[in-house]
Amino acid sequence: MEVGYGSGDKTGFFTQGRRSLEALIVQFKVKTVELARNIKKLGQDDPRRVIHSLKVGLALTLVSTFYYCQPLYSNFDETAIWAIMTVVVVFEFSVGATLGKGLNRGMATLMAGGLGIGAHHLANLSGHIGEPILLGFFVFLQATISTFLRFFPTLKARYDYGLLIFILTFSMISVSGYRDDEILEIAHRRLSTICIGGATCVIISIVIFPVWAGEDLHNLIALNIEKLGNFLEGFGDEYFKRTGREECNEDKKILEGYKSFLNSKTSEASLANFASWEPGHGRFPFRHPWKLYLKVGTLARECAYRIEALNGCLNADIQVSSEVSTIIQEACTTMSLESGKALKELALAIKIMVPPSSADPHIENAKSAAKNIKSLLKSGIWEDIDLLKVIPGVTVCSILVDVVTRTEEIAASIHELASKAQFKSAESPLSEQIQSVKSAPMVNCSHVITVSESTLAASQSESSSAPKDSKQSMEV
Amino acid sequence: MEVGYGSGDKTGFFTQGRRSLEALIVQFKVKTVELARNIKKLGQDDPRRVIHSLKVGLALTLVSTFYYCQPLYSNFDETAIWAIMTVVVVFEFSVGATLGKGLNRGMATLMAGGLGIGAHHLANLSGHIGEPILLGFFVFLQATISTFLRFFPTLKARYDYGLLIFILTFSMISVSGYRDDEILEIAHRRLSTICIGGATCVIISIVIFPVWAGEDLHNLIALNIEKLGNFLEGFGDEYFKRTGREECNEDKKILEGYKSFLNSKTSEASLANFASWEPGHGRFPFRHPWKLYLKVGTLARECAYRIEALNGCLNADIQVSSEVSTIIQEACTTMSLESGKALKELALAIKIMVPPSSADPHIENAKSAAKNIKSLLKSGIWEDIDLLKVIPGVTVCSILVDVVTRTEEIAASIHELASKAQFKSAESPLSEQIQSVKSAPMVNCSHVITVSESTLAASQSESSSAPKDSKQSMEV
Repeated sequence: MEVGYGSGDKTGFFTQGRRSLEALIVQFKVKTVELARNIKKLGQDDPRRVIHSLKVGLALTLVSTFYYCQPLYSNFDETAIWAIMTVVVVFEFSVGATLGKGLNRGMATLMAGGLGIGAHHLANLSGHIGEPILLGFFVFLQATISTFLRFFPTLKARYDYGLLIFILTFSMISVSGYRDDEILEIAHRRLSTICIGGATCVIISIVIFPVWAGEDLHNLIALNIEKLGNFLEGFGDEYFKRTGREECNEDKKILEGYKSFLNSKTSEASLANFASWEPGHGRFPFRHPWKLYLKVGTLARECAYRIEALNGCLNADIQVSSEVSTIIQEACTTMSLESGKALKELALAIKIMVPPSSADPHIENAKSAAKNIKSLLKSGIWEDIDLLKVIPGVTVCSILVDVVTRTEEIAASIHELASKAQFKSAESPLSEQIQSVKSAPMVNCSHVITVSESTLAASQSESSSAPKDSKQSMEV
Repeated sequence: MEVGYGSGDKTGFFTQGRRSLEALIVQFKVKTVELARNIKKLGQDDPRRVIHSLKVGLALTLVSTFYYCQPLYSNFDETAIWAIMTVVVVFEFSVGATLGKGLNRGMATLMAGGLGIGAHHLANLSGHIGEPILLGFFVFLQATISTFLRFFPTLKARYDYGLLIFILTFSMISVSGYRDDEILEIAHRRLSTICIGGATCVIISIVIFPVWAGEDLHNLIALNIEKLGNFLEGFGDEYFKRTGREECNEDKKILEGYKSFLNSKTSEASLANFASWEPGHGRFPFRHPWKLYLKVGTLARECAYRIEALNGCLNADIQVSSEVSTIIQEACTTMSLESGKALKELALAIKIMVPPSSADPHIENAKSAAKNIKSLLKSGIWEDIDLLKVIPGVTVCSILVDVVTRTEEIAASIHELASKAQFKSAESPLSEQIQSVKSAPMVNCSHVITVSESTLAASQSESSSAPKDSKQSMEV
């Protein structure tokens, strides 16, 4: 019996073991498939990510084999480090970020190198005992001051990396135990290897499928305003006819596309910062007014907060009653539709860089609808209706009136942008051009929204928020 | 005559020159004073910045003089570089960020070192011609894959720096032209110097006035909810009595304190990330539920969007008429005041880490006021009043009803936080403790707001958003 039990246990053990092994394998397969799907999605969402990875690999291989095949210096290892390190650290997703980091690194190394050599020389004069004390004091002083400077918002935005490299280079050079003439030689070698690494990054990032932060910012702002327009265009139908038809998830996705915009301030700011490092490219000259995009973005975000409130009305427990609905529907739908159209025209005007005058008639329509609703509310039509039934409708009306005002402000800021950036009327008849561009983005719309949301989810990947379709059309 | 003219010109030239020189000096003085004031303000806003700068200086001096006075290795310069570099790059403002970077750097160096040595060995086997080709291929492959992995949001959030160091170390080791036994020696030295640098950073950052990201997050969330409470507490008076008294700028500043909160999502996320690296400290054990703070923050931000709408009503052109005002004032003021009090109780409960039950009666009051206003709106009281006059008041009512609902949600999420994080009722009578804490934050309130705003302005300084007063009370 005991043996029987034992063998039964053993069989049970093996069976159980095989089963759990099989379960493990199945789980592993599922995980692998899931991982592969994630990787594929990440690449498909923005193929520029794959290209960027290949570019980094190329730059690194170029620099390292260059040094490997032609050892220019006797002490090969040490100098190769600096070129490789520069490529790894400086190569960023967009041209602007790469240039900014490269220039920061180069300038900081030059300046800190000069100061460091001076400090080293000064310390040398003070004798054998005084030297380490004086050097320690210098290192402490400059590290403390530079670290504190990094807290200044303006310096942090543009020169944070430069200050870091300044601390690093100064400390290394002033501490190193070499004689003065050797130091000069080392400083020279370091600077030249850093230049080689930096130049490789900048050239590859500009020549091979460049990703311009400025263009990303331009497209991001246009896309966000278009999303607001999408919501407003769909809002009237959704609000007044929601009892009449089934809810469609696809519609809802388009309607709620604006949500990613509520938190995009940080990405806009960093894109504008990168863009300011970029040379003139394509449609954007060197001193393109990037800061005005931030102003447009801020105003549009103000509008997005109102739209968030409208979305709250859409999902509220108490919906508008049918008798109120018949009274306000026309004016509300007009306000919503016309300001939506105006916003989409404004987005389009940014996208194709023409003065946004085609939005003006829609704004006028929205304004007159707002006037209508105000006089409608003044009329005696409401006396028979229970106030509680009126409230949801009236709330929507007042938010929409507010949205019309915001739309006007956005239009004014885009007019300013158009005049400062010298947007020119297209040579081909505008309506044709608009038709041709209009048909394109709507097809990919839900896709574009997915892209930006997945991008914004990675809160620190601040330089890849532009839609890919507009990018591709530029490359073709 | 000509000479006269000439000398006249000359005198004029000199006078003008002196004047413009004087103007320049005055301008220079003004700029210097302004700069000094800015520096002072930056330090006063958060004295931890000054301390942090001194800590970095100290760490760097320690590491560099250690190497300077006791050259442990013959090739002194090269190894010193790695310790200094580690200190400069790894030392961050908070303990969590420093630990996270240090661990990332150490682990990545270890792993990439092992793989790099393997790759180097493999390439060595393939002969003189095959070696550089194979090495180039390895470098390309791993750089491409690792760079692509950096786009994964989950990896980017926690291991971005590690991946960077992985690329760097692998490339350097596999490319370096040394023999295998030398490589092992170098890898060992590098790892040990990196450990020395990293350990110096971590020890100094923990031992000398530590800045805990977790505590910052805790205080930031409590402060933001308190700001919402401040707005709501003041809103009723401000809205209904604004014609009766002079506007006070100080009041307005307190009221608009919530604005910085609208865009604080990124800082909250990165603080939570840093906090998850931190060991247990003070009131926070190792596995404190930091993610729940993000949930509370998100819900509170939803509430902040409604408050933004209320603020819009406060600044609207059409204000509430006096006859409507008399009807709704009481219920509205109660809703606003009670939900404000509830939010402040909730903020306080987070701050002193007790279950937030003291907020419940206020929420009940706010809910019953919301019920009152609903029945008031149903009554026949409105029949004689022009609808246009009713609208502003009704809009405020409906937003306030919404705010009451949001407050309930926030309270529920804080109850969840309190149970997960095991907040315990205080031993001393709660009312006493509340009184003693309540009196403190109100005094410094406008100051605290300034701190957070200036911090948020630096969009990338994501780890220094906590109020200093709460910090100081911890240090004492």
